[in-house]
Amino acid sequence: MIFSINQDLLLDTINVIQRGLPVKTPLPILNGIKLEVFDDHLIFTTSNTDIAIQMIVNDSSLEVLSPGRVVIPGKYLIDITRKLEGRVEFSLVENRVLVIRSSNVEYKLHVMDVEDYPDVDFLDMGQPIVLESKTLKGIIKETNYATSQYEKRPILTGVNFKHEEDKLFCVATDSYRLSQKILPLSTDFEPFNIVIPNKSLDELSRIIDSVNEDVEIYISPNKVLFKFNDILFQTRLLDGVYPDTLRIIPTEFPIIIKFNKDELLRSVERVSLLSPKDRENNYNIIKLMVKKDYSVEISSTNTEIGDAQEVIIPTDDVVGPAIKIAFSSKYLTEALKAFTSNEVTLNFAGEIKPFVLKGDLDPDMLSLILPVRIE
Amino acid sequence: MIFSINQDLLLDTINVIQRGLPVKTPLPILNGIKLEVFDDHLIFTTSNTDIAIQMIVNDSSLEVLSPGRVVIPGKYLIDITRKLEGRVEFSLVENRVLVIRSSNVEYKLHVMDVEDYPDVDFLDMGQPIVLESKTLKGIIKETNYATSQYEKRPILTGVNFKHEEDKLFCVATDSYRLSQKILPLSTDFEPFNIVIPNKSLDELSRIIDSVNEDVEIYISPNKVLFKFNDILFQTRLLDGVYPDTLRIIPTEFPIIIKFNKDELLRSVERVSLLSPKDRENNYNIIKLMVKKDYSVEISSTNTEIGDAQEVIIPTDDVVGPAIKIAFSSKYLTEALKAFTSNEVTLNFAGEIKPFVLKGDLDPDMLSLILPVRIE
Repeated sequence: MIFSINQDLLLDTINVIQRGLPVKTPLPILNGIKLEVFDDHLIFTTSNTDIAIQMIVNDSSLEVLSPGRVVIPGKYLIDITRKLEGRVEFSLVENRVLVIRSSNVEYKLHVMDVEDYPDVDFLDMGQPIVLESKTLKGIIKETNYATSQYEKRPILTGVNFKHEEDKLFCVATDSYRLSQKILPLSTDFEPFNIVIPNKSLDELSRIIDSVNEDVEIYISPNKVLFKFNDILFQTRLLDGVYPDTLRIIPTEFPIIIKFNKDELLRSVERVSLLSPKDRENNYNIIKLMVKKDYSVEISSTNTEIGDAQEVIIPTDDVVGPAIKIAFSSKYLTEALKAFTSNEVTLNFAGEIKPFVLKGDLDPDMLSLILPVRIE
Repeated sequence: MIFSINQDLLLDTINVIQRGLPVKTPLPILNGIKLEVFDDHLIFTTSNTDIAIQMIVNDSSLEVLSPGRVVIPGKYLIDITRKLEGRVEFSLVENRVLVIRSSNVEYKLHVMDVEDYPDVDFLDMGQPIVLESKTLKGIIKETNYATSQYEKRPILTGVNFKHEEDKLFCVATDSYRLSQKILPLSTDFEPFNIVIPNKSLDELSRIIDSVNEDVEIYISPNKVLFKFNDILFQTRLLDGVYPDTLRIIPTEFPIIIKFNKDELLRSVERVSLLSPKDRENNYNIIKLMVKKDYSVEISSTNTEIGDAQEVIIPTDDVVGPAIKIAFSSKYLTEALKAFTSNEVTLNFAGEIKPFVLKGDLDPDMLSLILPVRIE
């Protein structure tokens, strides 16, 4: 196995492929990057218990003198590639040592036996769903933050993607707040109802950050495969039945208040500076009160530290009666950041009912927050 | 106590004064910032077991309606000040609650009793030593990195400043490497020989980073006070006798090799990528060998991971015989970064003797590294 490649191309590839390396694993070989060298292209593969990534490199700057296969310790290949410049030559000696040369530097890296690397089964590609990469990035940004970070109810640590009646429903909830995005999707596809782990979506989101082409999505009962550029990104799905969330979303909102998103965000951040940071002490709870003059007061109380309050003027007439409601400032802050719109409305169904955020420029999106009882 | 001040001025002040807050303390009042409000100026004070900082604010934008004194929880004053904009009003209510107002936001912060704040004795100011702030910053950058991070020999956790025969000797060593800077200093001052804790110098360095004026230095047997702008920065000194380091610095160097500093730095970083990171496994040891053709080879060996080697061409003829020497790449990397010069020389006294780094543009500076035995 002998080939040479430009450092910048190799670094781009490794920046993608390394996202499939495990954080820790009982199977040391998975800490390696599997590299297959063919006459005119390379295939890089990584995998862990959640995801598997494969990337094909097929560039005119690649020169292959002889093909071969090897598993390279991932951490060291990453560190080395970052520090090199210009042309990089690889040659495998006796299937045990990989010699990496660039300018005046030479590494002799002990490699692992390619026969020990477990088979990675990527899904057969039938008829894909196709989404613009921008749309897919949007869905992840708009929903993934609302998934649960705790394993108490594992099904809530993922985002539910459900295809039903010409629509794709994307929903995340940790049972205290919820985010939902609905997209049109043609009926060429069978209905499906899957839950993708939040960590897999995080990794996918980072990889498609610089991608502009469409993403093909292949779905099976326990795996989903995303294909774009020369990359295959496959993740396991979460087992179990995702709760029916539609019925907890209020449909009637007697009180609607419109805000400039950034102003509201900054106000909430200022007011929550003094609020307790741990869940036991009513994690980051702030109060929102519509006053008689229809200005809105946001406040927080911390018996030990002190109080904070701020008056914020809605950008439109307040609709409905006065209201006083308390909730986690963290939930509101994270929800606001997921919106594209500059103007958002807070839609209240009552003081002890969930309230809903909507945005002018996010017509298919809805974010819901459960209030906490006060006094 | 009622006054108002511009947010940017307050933030600049707090960014300095907060460096005197303790990381943790058995005396909760020290978590507060002491504020004294006079008719035409403010005095902020913080202190911990190592350092005390006092800053006077005397600006035309300050408006005092009534004077007073208070101790404000430091963390919250910092967080609040960062989030405000424009004009900020402070008023103290019944010596218990500090009301902070800015635009539409109002904080009511519980404060501490100023009578509980311990007295901070700043040194009487006699005849100071005066250094340009640039010079003082330079000394800290050039020496502090070589101090010990371990408390085994507490005296080595500081930098030794010694005034003797018209010279100021600044020395740091952790007993494996050493850095020394010598400056001319007129005989108007009594000789002194003090050791300043490395953490205090870190904090001082951060504060004077944006200072351009001269720094006045007042020295007593157990404290040193730095005065600049409207800031007093005082630190305790380390007890004990600093070792005589001059005698361990070789004076004859049969082998001298000149390098481009950045090239050498990058080579060392590349070659040490595979070297073990923990002290038990010969922490980051690399080998340097002068070859027959007077090129220089740097290499590292890690029995588990693999080997790395790089050839680097000196920027000038190599003086002296061939040599092979092994040492910590971390020590060389940190020493190189402390130099201003683009060209540095490595001066060897023998394979098992300490070697010395010097730089064309750092005439008063010397960095020494102890080799380790190999084979």
